Amino acid sequence: MKHLVKMSDLSVLEIHELLEQATRFEQGEKWIAERDKFVANLFFENSTRTKVSFEVAEKKLGLQVINFEADQSSVQKGETLYDTVKTLESLGVNALVIRHGQDEYFKDLLPFINIPILNAGDGCGHHPTQSLLDLYTIKQEYGKFEGLNVVIVGDIVHSRVARSNAEALTRLGAKVSFSSPKQWQDVNNSYGSYVQLDDAVQEADVVMLLRIQHERHEEKMGLTSLEYHHMYGLTVEREKTMKSGSIIMHPAPVNRNVEIADSLVECGRSRIFTQMRNGVFVRMAVLKRALLSKRGD
Amino acid sequence: MKHLVKMSDLSVLEIHELLEQATRFEQGEKWIAERDKFVANLFFENSTRTKVSFEVAEKKLGLQVINFEADQSSVQKGETLYDTVKTLESLGVNALVIRHGQDEYFKDLLPFINIPILNAGDGCGHHPTQSLLDLYTIKQEYGKFEGLNVVIVGDIVHSRVARSNAEALTRLGAKVSFSSPKQWQDVNNSYGSYVQLDDAVQEADVVMLLRIQHERHEEKMGLTSLEYHHMYGLTVEREKTMKSGSIIMHPAPVNRNVEIADSLVECGRSRIFTQMRNGVFVRMAVLKRALLSKRGD
Amino acid sequence: MKHLVKMSDLSVLEIHELLEQATRFEQGEKWIAERDKFVANLFFENSTRTKVSFEVAEKKLGLQVINFEADQSSVQKGETLYDTVKTLESLGVNALVIRHGQDEYFKDLLPFINIPILNAGDGCGHHPTQSLLDLYTIKQEYGKFEGLNVVIVGDIVHSRVARSNAEALTRLGAKVSFSSPKQWQDVNNSYGSYVQLDDAVQEADVVMLLRIQHERHEEKMGLTSLEYHHMYGLTVEREKTMKSGSIIMHPAPVNRNVEIADSLVECGRSRIFTQMRNGVFVRMAVLKRALLSKRGD
Repeated sequence: MKHLVKMSDLSVLEIHELLEQATRFEQGEKWIAERDKFVANLFFENSTRTKVSFEVAEKKLGLQVINFEADQSSVQKGETLYDTVKTLESLGVNALVIRHGQDEYFKDLLPFINIPILNAGDGCGHHPTQSLLDLYTIKQEYGKFEGLNVVIVGDIVHSRVARSNAEALTRLGAKVSFSSPKQWQDVNNSYGSYVQLDDAVQEADVVMLLRIQHERHEEKMGLTSLEYHHMYGLTVEREKTMKSGSIIMHPAPVNRNVEIADSLVECGRSRIFTQMRNGVFVRMAVLKRALLSKRGD
Repeated sequence: MKHLVKMSDLSVLEIHELLEQATRFEQGEKWIAERDKFVANLFFENSTRTKVSFEVAEKKLGLQVINFEADQSSVQKGETLYDTVKTLESLGVNALVIRHGQDEYFKDLLPFINIPILNAGDGCGHHPTQSLLDLYTIKQEYGKFEGLNVVIVGDIVHSRVARSNAEALTRLGAKVSFSSPKQWQDVNNSYGSYVQLDDAVQEADVVMLLRIQHERHEEKMGLTSLEYHHMYGLTVEREKTMKSGSIIMHPAPVNRNVEIADSLVECGRSRIFTQMRNGVFVRMAVLKRALLSKRGD
Repeated sequence: MKHLVKMSDLSVLEIHELLEQATRFEQGEKWIAERDKFVANLFFENSTRTKVSFEVAEKKLGLQVINFEADQSSVQKGETLYDTVKTLESLGVNALVIRHGQDEYFKDLLPFINIPILNAGDGCGHHPTQSLLDLYTIKQEYGKFEGLNVVIVGDIVHSRVARSNAEALTRLGAKVSFSSPKQWQDVNNSYGSYVQLDDAVQEADVVMLLRIQHERHEEKMGLTSLEYHHMYGLTVEREKTMKSGSIIMHPAPVNRNVEIADSLVECGRSRIFTQMRNGVFVRMAVLKRALLSKRGD
């Protein structure tokens, strides 16, 4: 079963294979699933990019799409995630895309579910297709990962992206560093060391900004948005010190003038909307892999 | 017009025809509706199984699906069900699947609507496709209904399923009995007599458990979940007394360890997830019948 | 870019072309978009008719439909309309249908968005496809606009329809008048004069009733529903004074026995449900025009 629940389950070879398949999809490869293959999208948390991106990818592959609406479902009658998922499997759904607020919600599902689960985000844990689209965007830019300097900036400890990306980028040969307010540093993430933002920005090939997730955690950062922007944001001044050819990334939605100056969101270095575009190809690759897998895989 | 609003509208012959069509669909028969036939799903109450099951069935038949979202519609501006339905008819929708909390909501619609209405549940009244999938599951198991003992257990008076199933099973030749707390007995349902659960379980070919619908009625049963489980639930001990080859059914969602012990939900006798699977074929049959009907039918 | 955000952007020739294309669609013309063209429907306000009508039109044209659910999206995390729209563009969506409560929400989008925007209603401002389907219904009836008397009745000042229709009908050669309680007259709408309802009804070829939008504005009209019905509604008595062959229109949802007597909603003169039916053809025409447009258009 070719589930995809976290990046660390993928070998370096598998990562490269997925990125190459995504490239072929971007170049126009057509692969259409067999007739009447169904994918259900279960989003228990709000999403624009990831949800629509999966839906576009699914429809491009000729899949039948079921958008499961948790708030109009028997979840409201107390039905568990396990029973919901088992129900969809029984109804003939061939793969599931799930976002859920509980860390590693999939742990209780994987031993019992006979169709692939594609994790579209769990709690503060994992978000493998976001990570793959970030890798894809970097590879598209530089053609490689070896020797690249990537600085990840912001709320490291609560970020699904920081953890997955730091681990994957390190395995792929890049050098990762972090810049973050003290209270958002992550002592359990050993894939990079903490650096001063002003230094890091000048040396980085990729400045990867993280979203301040006001909606996810209660603890305030103890800074106003303006203070954060000056201390940890990509200001107009900092961008000027970036080296030639280096790029800006952000998983979005962006808090404009907090993580990044408004005028930089669509600047020449920004790959923020390119990342979104790339997400469709990466998700097509992940869906194809899942749907072609056999039970024993 | 081949509406399907309640089981009692179907003759025994029509029931058998629908079950046979469902069998052919399960065996792989392809029937694709004409191009650009639209079905709208109107669910004014929460649902997972019935809603997704209808949507899968519709898409397998090549239908165009409109998922009408009542909470984002003009129903919020006070538009009546009649005007909503008449609007969908005017917009070119060819059939309607409706779940609504009002008993027999369809009574005010049928004289004026020129497209088939498939009832996906009304108040405490009817739920014909659930009934058909239950019948299908029993026929799949035993090949017949004549002479079978079916005990229906639980909240008889509030159950859409108990009423429709008792009536249909009796007409088809099965013997139905009920087991229920006194306050949930239904004096208007004359299709079976009330029996002791422990006796009935031993003699039944089918133990059909009903859902405690916490969300539907205010009146409490006056028992804790644990007390209910011991008195009216299918406990591990009771299951051991069931005769060889007999089966367990439940319309789901299941309240685990209330109506049925957690460990029995997916046991060898359980047809709970099989029922869900069968629902897709039954709904395909009902949709095909509706779409092939003419105005005069 | 063939946006359609307000009627005044369309020349008389363009209006006629759209109506003629809609006629060809009604007569059965098939036009199927290229494979994998995506349209996203963004409804930030409740809608039945317009939303389903666009969805039916899109599916008849073979388009892939994304129903964007604002309340389950990153809009809940504070994402702006601009960033939402730019995201959908990046994800490969080829056209956007938007309803939003803000007047002229599209002003901030048009300079920066590279895919067509079809306005499905903005604040109290514009609703061009409603206007087009009204024109279509009138042309279907009379074959022309020149010399027709159209009286628009009710809440003129808050109506998207009154403004667009009065302007377009005047340009097309019809004579428009208004009838309205004083507080709902619109001093900025110069396309007609205010007349007594009883006189106007007798002379009109088209009596176009407007909806009392209880949900949209706080200011009460200072009349009970019954008083309004007698003073400004189409009562059974008033309908009897209408001249032979003249028709009744209403954008719906109807407040029965307020704007119009219940028994007249589906009477011989009423085109209320015909308007809805026509909306599908008109929206197909608008979508085809948008999708065939080039960047420079």
